[in-house]
Amino acid sequence: MADESGFSKGLAGVVADATSVSQVQGEVGRLIYRGISIEELAEKSTYEECVYFSLYGKLPNQNELNKFNAEMKANRVLPKTVEAVIAAAPRSAHPMSILQAAVAAMGFDENPVNLKNEEHNIHNAIKIISQLATAVARISRERRGLAAVAPNPELSHAENFLYMLNGSKPNKEEAHIFDVALILHLDHDFNASTFAARVVASTEAKLSLSISAAIGALSGPLHGGANEKVLEMADAIGAPENAKAWVANALATKAKVMGFGHRVYRTMDPRAKVLRGMLEKLVATKKEKDTYETLRIVHDSMIEELSKTSKDYIWPNVDFWSGALYRLMDIESIDFTPIFAVSRVAGWSSHIIEMWRDNRIYRPAAKYVGPADVKYVDMKNRK
Amino acid sequence: MADESGFSKGLAGVVADATSVSQVQGEVGRLIYRGISIEELAEKSTYEECVYFSLYGKLPNQNELNKFNAEMKANRVLPKTVEAVIAAAPRSAHPMSILQAAVAAMGFDENPVNLKNEEHNIHNAIKIISQLATAVARISRERRGLAAVAPNPELSHAENFLYMLNGSKPNKEEAHIFDVALILHLDHDFNASTFAARVVASTEAKLSLSISAAIGALSGPLHGGANEKVLEMADAIGAPENAKAWVANALATKAKVMGFGHRVYRTMDPRAKVLRGMLEKLVATKKEKDTYETLRIVHDSMIEELSKTSKDYIWPNVDFWSGALYRLMDIESIDFTPIFAVSRVAGWSSHIIEMWRDNRIYRPAAKYVGPADVKYVDMKNRK
Repeated sequence: MADESGFSKGLAGVVADATSVSQVQGEVGRLIYRGISIEELAEKSTYEECVYFSLYGKLPNQNELNKFNAEMKANRVLPKTVEAVIAAAPRSAHPMSILQAAVAAMGFDENPVNLKNEEHNIHNAIKIISQLATAVARISRERRGLAAVAPNPELSHAENFLYMLNGSKPNKEEAHIFDVALILHLDHDFNASTFAARVVASTEAKLSLSISAAIGALSGPLHGGANEKVLEMADAIGAPENAKAWVANALATKAKVMGFGHRVYRTMDPRAKVLRGMLEKLVATKKEKDTYETLRIVHDSMIEELSKTSKDYIWPNVDFWSGALYRLMDIESIDFTPIFAVSRVAGWSSHIIEMWRDNRIYRPAAKYVGPADVKYVDMKNRK
Repeated sequence: MADESGFSKGLAGVVADATSVSQVQGEVGRLIYRGISIEELAEKSTYEECVYFSLYGKLPNQNELNKFNAEMKANRVLPKTVEAVIAAAPRSAHPMSILQAAVAAMGFDENPVNLKNEEHNIHNAIKIISQLATAVARISRERRGLAAVAPNPELSHAENFLYMLNGSKPNKEEAHIFDVALILHLDHDFNASTFAARVVASTEAKLSLSISAAIGALSGPLHGGANEKVLEMADAIGAPENAKAWVANALATKAKVMGFGHRVYRTMDPRAKVLRGMLEKLVATKKEKDTYETLRIVHDSMIEELSKTSKDYIWPNVDFWSGALYRLMDIESIDFTPIFAVSRVAGWSSHIIEMWRDNRIYRPAAKYVGPADVKYVDMKNRK
């Protein structure tokens, strides 16, 4: 795991901490949230229930879930200050920059962290989880020059988000698929944004400031932007009939194929399987099938070709299918990463709440590779 | 370094990466920026020159420094959008929350990262380093109900900051002392905020989003807030004549003495030495000497008492003196951590620029300590 210089670049393989929020079982292609496989949660649960499960570590009974849902709904309206921060942004600004500012602004009235009062911290988290969805929808609508849509307390989190985003209620099928997509993205152990949230929160910074930092990490093209790039790839391929030749050429020239490969998975990403199944259902109801067809052929050709030469080949990850799914729901590509945040905010929060039970500030060591003893040279003697 | 469970909590002692920006030599109490000791830089250099040195890795010649100073000055005025974000915050909001939102807003017009164009990234950094000082001064004045003061291009970075903060030009002595304080806080290898900046930037997120994340980390009471707490301690002690007995009692009851101890230093923090010298000079010019006198007696009593029982005792760190110094300049305690950011932003930027030359996303492993195979229980069967 450590290279010859004594450390592992990107902390690859370095165990940074313990967690019981989720586990990525990369060798067998399994992902569990607090012990339950995501396939089972995707089939039987809802996003709200999974958020409760993630935060509290137990499945809620009906009373607990009712109370939790009420609290989520009660927090949907943004404070005026957050609305003002969003309004201050020009339409040309990237939504992740605006979202980072908006979430920082959610902390304007947040009390300092109290490590001895976990319930207090969980309520702060619920507020941010709820408001973040409203903020993402509002940012998207402002960019598109549309009036904000007030949250509707009769709708679930997924339904209400799509309603606030599109201005009309989604049909049951699409709302369900979107809900499952939220479940699938909720957590993924120490991915870079969660790790960023942990590093910031380890200083006992407020939740809003830690979540805001995680949004910064998620904004990076190496982290949250991959599904956008998969669609760009599909668009560049142009049509399903070009896909097979495109893959052959990509492999021959060792070009990067977007949505393939993952630092942890050594087989199929389990989220990709579930997403593909839903995407197939959804595409059957739509006229526009080209993006899906193109990706399907890229997918099958990749696996066919790669499996010929090696047993340890790269597999598609969750990003391979999610962009196509969102596009079928008429969501613009630039909103994909903010939507990732709408889901992952629950994972970030759960990690922070867990970590604060036994907190220690992250302060790693550095290997100094610069000169050891340089003298200050006066200005007149400099080159 | 790793504990019995297979990892080192808080990554203590774990080498996370290589750097040539700075080195903390904890055993001997030395801190170098790119090879030059901070004592020498504090004596001979200026903050602007140190920022250049930190970003580019060479001391600037006169031409380079002139150009750099001109660029810093040209970037001082905040964009209207950033002003609007600051204006949106209520006066009761913590300045670090506002600053995090303001820096995220500095990214509204920032181009995506281009790893092949370091000069482009450095210019983005200079803009943020310059604007951050203006933002901190403006946030402070809005909180105090005072009109913003426009930057003055005839003044140095330190002078101009104090001018924007206080509305009047500082005298030469105070401006010099503040400049040295900025130099001393510029960098400190992989402290938590710098590490947070690196984690976020490793996703190739924009500079503004990465710096915004670092501000979140610095806001945490375990990181940036220690000098505020030292003053609270001094105020609680009340008067110099109480200090000796207070220390005896603190040691007897094992109470925490603020501003003492550090994860890396095993002797005097070199920054503390330089700061104390400046503080002594400054206090000689002031009527109010009680805070300094109280801290001096706490300091001397602590070292006297601790040295009796152990050779490896804890020493005062930079935070022990910096709060008293800023108070003598009539700066409110709540602005101490934002002022830390005014300096450290140059270190954060330098680490990011350096890291991008050979980037790999930070994605550590996790030790899963939850249950392995939980079944989903239907609602009616839950407790």
